[in-house]
Amino acid sequence: MGDDGRHMTPDEFRAHGRAVVDWIADYYERVGSLPVLSRAEPGDLRARLPDHPPSRGEPFDAVLADVDRLILPGITHWQSPNFFAFFPANTSFPSILGELLSAGLGVQGMLWATSPACTELEAHVLDWVAEMLDLPAAFRSDGPGGGVIQDSASGAVLCALIAARERATAGGSNERGCDGRLVAYASSHTHSSVEKAVKIAGLGRENLRLVAVDGRYAMRPDALDEAIRAYRAAGRIPAFVTATVGTTSSNALDPVAAIGRVCREHGVWLHVDAAMCGTAAVCPEFRYIHDGLELADSYCFNPHKWMFTNFDCDCFYVADRGALIRSLSVLPEYLKNRATESGAVTDYRDWQVPLGRRFRALKLWFVIRHYGVEGLRRHVRRHVELAQRFAGWVGEDDRFELAAPAPLNLVCFRHRGGDGVNQQILDRVNASGALYLTHTRLDDRLTLRLCVGQTHTELSHVAAAWDRIREAAG
Amino acid sequence: MGDDGRHMTPDEFRAHGRAVVDWIADYYERVGSLPVLSRAEPGDLRARLPDHPPSRGEPFDAVLADVDRLILPGITHWQSPNFFAFFPANTSFPSILGELLSAGLGVQGMLWATSPACTELEAHVLDWVAEMLDLPAAFRSDGPGGGVIQDSASGAVLCALIAARERATAGGSNERGCDGRLVAYASSHTHSSVEKAVKIAGLGRENLRLVAVDGRYAMRPDALDEAIRAYRAAGRIPAFVTATVGTTSSNALDPVAAIGRVCREHGVWLHVDAAMCGTAAVCPEFRYIHDGLELADSYCFNPHKWMFTNFDCDCFYVADRGALIRSLSVLPEYLKNRATESGAVTDYRDWQVPLGRRFRALKLWFVIRHYGVEGLRRHVRRHVELAQRFAGWVGEDDRFELAAPAPLNLVCFRHRGGDGVNQQILDRVNASGALYLTHTRLDDRLTLRLCVGQTHTELSHVAAAWDRIREAAG
Repeated sequence: MGDDGRHMTPDEFRAHGRAVVDWIADYYERVGSLPVLSRAEPGDLRARLPDHPPSRGEPFDAVLADVDRLILPGITHWQSPNFFAFFPANTSFPSILGELLSAGLGVQGMLWATSPACTELEAHVLDWVAEMLDLPAAFRSDGPGGGVIQDSASGAVLCALIAARERATAGGSNERGCDGRLVAYASSHTHSSVEKAVKIAGLGRENLRLVAVDGRYAMRPDALDEAIRAYRAAGRIPAFVTATVGTTSSNALDPVAAIGRVCREHGVWLHVDAAMCGTAAVCPEFRYIHDGLELADSYCFNPHKWMFTNFDCDCFYVADRGALIRSLSVLPEYLKNRATESGAVTDYRDWQVPLGRRFRALKLWFVIRHYGVEGLRRHVRRHVELAQRFAGWVGEDDRFELAAPAPLNLVCFRHRGGDGVNQQILDRVNASGALYLTHTRLDDRLTLRLCVGQTHTELSHVAAAWDRIREAAG
Repeated sequence: MGDDGRHMTPDEFRAHGRAVVDWIADYYERVGSLPVLSRAEPGDLRARLPDHPPSRGEPFDAVLADVDRLILPGITHWQSPNFFAFFPANTSFPSILGELLSAGLGVQGMLWATSPACTELEAHVLDWVAEMLDLPAAFRSDGPGGGVIQDSASGAVLCALIAARERATAGGSNERGCDGRLVAYASSHTHSSVEKAVKIAGLGRENLRLVAVDGRYAMRPDALDEAIRAYRAAGRIPAFVTATVGTTSSNALDPVAAIGRVCREHGVWLHVDAAMCGTAAVCPEFRYIHDGLELADSYCFNPHKWMFTNFDCDCFYVADRGALIRSLSVLPEYLKNRATESGAVTDYRDWQVPLGRRFRALKLWFVIRHYGVEGLRRHVRRHVELAQRFAGWVGEDDRFELAAPAPLNLVCFRHRGGDGVNQQILDRVNASGALYLTHTRLDDRLTLRLCVGQTHTELSHVAAAWDRIREAAG
């Protein structure tokens, strides 16, 4: 099997494919009992791998056995129901099957013509998602805007910034390059991807202005307005604002409507990053988080965080696709084709940084069809309820306090004993393997974060986590 | 199954997983008989999809049946042995299984700590690949450089440009932004991703200088030298050169050694893009394509083109990882961890545009272990031989001519009857469904391209393609 370097046959693939499918099913049956944070030390895996690639092929069974023997000890189990760290990157069996089918088809959706279904399913499912979240009509593909799947919220904010840069300079920065006059704005709690994008796009880190936040760690629209006016008065070009619906530190909800009014007044592009929390808007009772979104020029959220779709799947919407396409389109001879020239189709290569793209809409389509909108609502509500239960327990224990509002599925909390005690709790619970928590700093105090979003997290897991945390504080 | 919105169980996943595995095996058994270029018209798929997402979940069997009914007619079959268009994006069963396992594990490798095996396997396998291609020692992880998997050659060239920009300005462009003085160089045949990167990075399209090519469509080092001197004399900052090993139009091989000497003399970053052809260097007899690569600062090639690994998998190497990391690193509090602070680990988030990343090294590891280095050589040699056979047939037919040198697996050719006849051939063969060819323009003449790289392409497919082409010319 493979030792002579020949291709695996379809029948061999059937057999090995079943073995991998069974491996994955087994994995999900036991993942809750594995230490969540890998206990590997730096270099552990590399020391066990052969120094040189094999000259001759090896049997697939040997490779799969090495996954257990070599890889598994080096895995931090993001799909453990005891994973409460960062934001989740959850998934589901239907999503895994969608990814498998995408890999099997192996199509390249760079142009409509290179697989029409890849482009059309994506545009269609993104319209479905816009309906599911009740997003503004401008983001749908039947108007001047539309949606596309990006690799991540980082990719989305970079594309939004590029489009904003072009709009602010009437195409000048695309042609002649940046000249140091453009200014971008975000709050001091905005995700690091915005700073990264500002650097990549040639604006310069100094030209990202961090706007002050209020007591709930949300951006202050008055401070934004002031900062835009000051820079404009100094001859600069305020071009781009990122508002966040659910910051990574504390899930703060920037006031999109008030920020949007400021942006409209000054003609500045507003991008709204709802990477995790956007999913909550599938439930009507949580849609308030998007109030004012009709004032945004672009928006993204990640089904690969909380909507049971495996990484990578970021849904990115623009109200005016022309601005995006003008800034990213390059059409060499070897990509020209009749469909593109007809103007009747979308070529998604012009909506993203890379040229190539795989068929990521399949997995999102599988997820939505498997769960249905009502099913997704049910699971999102369950996660929010679990986080609220946890927040309630924190509130009832005099040794602990809530460190920020917990509107949805992230709870920021701390022991009242100070940074040392909180670091000890963090280290102990993570070393225990029973759960995985990460931290942030709020008002310069070490703060623990517990985020409920893994697909299979139930009340028992959250209750056990709380027990373990209290124990670690003792 | 799913109609109540509940999660698919592991046992249901076993059953549905087998069905998808079998679907894929069946697909490969029949793909050679399907029309290669999709016959769908714009809007065909969208017209058949429900306007609204389902409220309640649907059985998985219904979803899979819709893949046949709705999706398949809209697929252009990149995995058909009769696919000769663009550059290939081939794959193999071991790669598909690696992607499946990666989706099943669902880990996020943004930090070493968030799954040590994800980072360490990637670093290790990229060292294996460097050995397989006999790349310069500086690109290996045990020195100042190292390798990382990017989504595409577009992502790689953008990262290279960002690092080059920073080196040329001693960090100034990262901090203060671009100022219009930086200049990048490529040949007039360089891939469109370079122009896209130059625009994204804020240099401006006007500041990408297209260097003249010689009669073989390869960059002229003397013209590059002259262009660098002219801009430097004018007070500009030449910062970045892309040399291509196998251009997309005609597979021209830019002379890396001579270009590298020019770049060294002027202190300009040299990036070498060997997106498709790099794979050929697995065979010692083809390694001449990389002559002079030790003068390059960065290099990339795509196993997702010709090394039987499904998209996305671009191997990107830098000789000095510090330059790359300094330009892309942002470390917010919520990502800080002891392993990062120890300095003993690699955090690949600082080597790429996005923060998140999935476990792509698994599929490349599976491919190398399944085939072994000798097995990969065998298949690459076979593809080159098939292309050379085709080039021979073209040379023997008085009606046709070779339009450019065909050193490896791409043949550029044309009918001597002019653009009209060649367009007719292209339209007829693609409409027939029997094969898929694309075109370019060389010396402003329409030129047909036939690229041999799909995993299962054999002599019979190439011979049938040639028959069909001659017939279409009649």
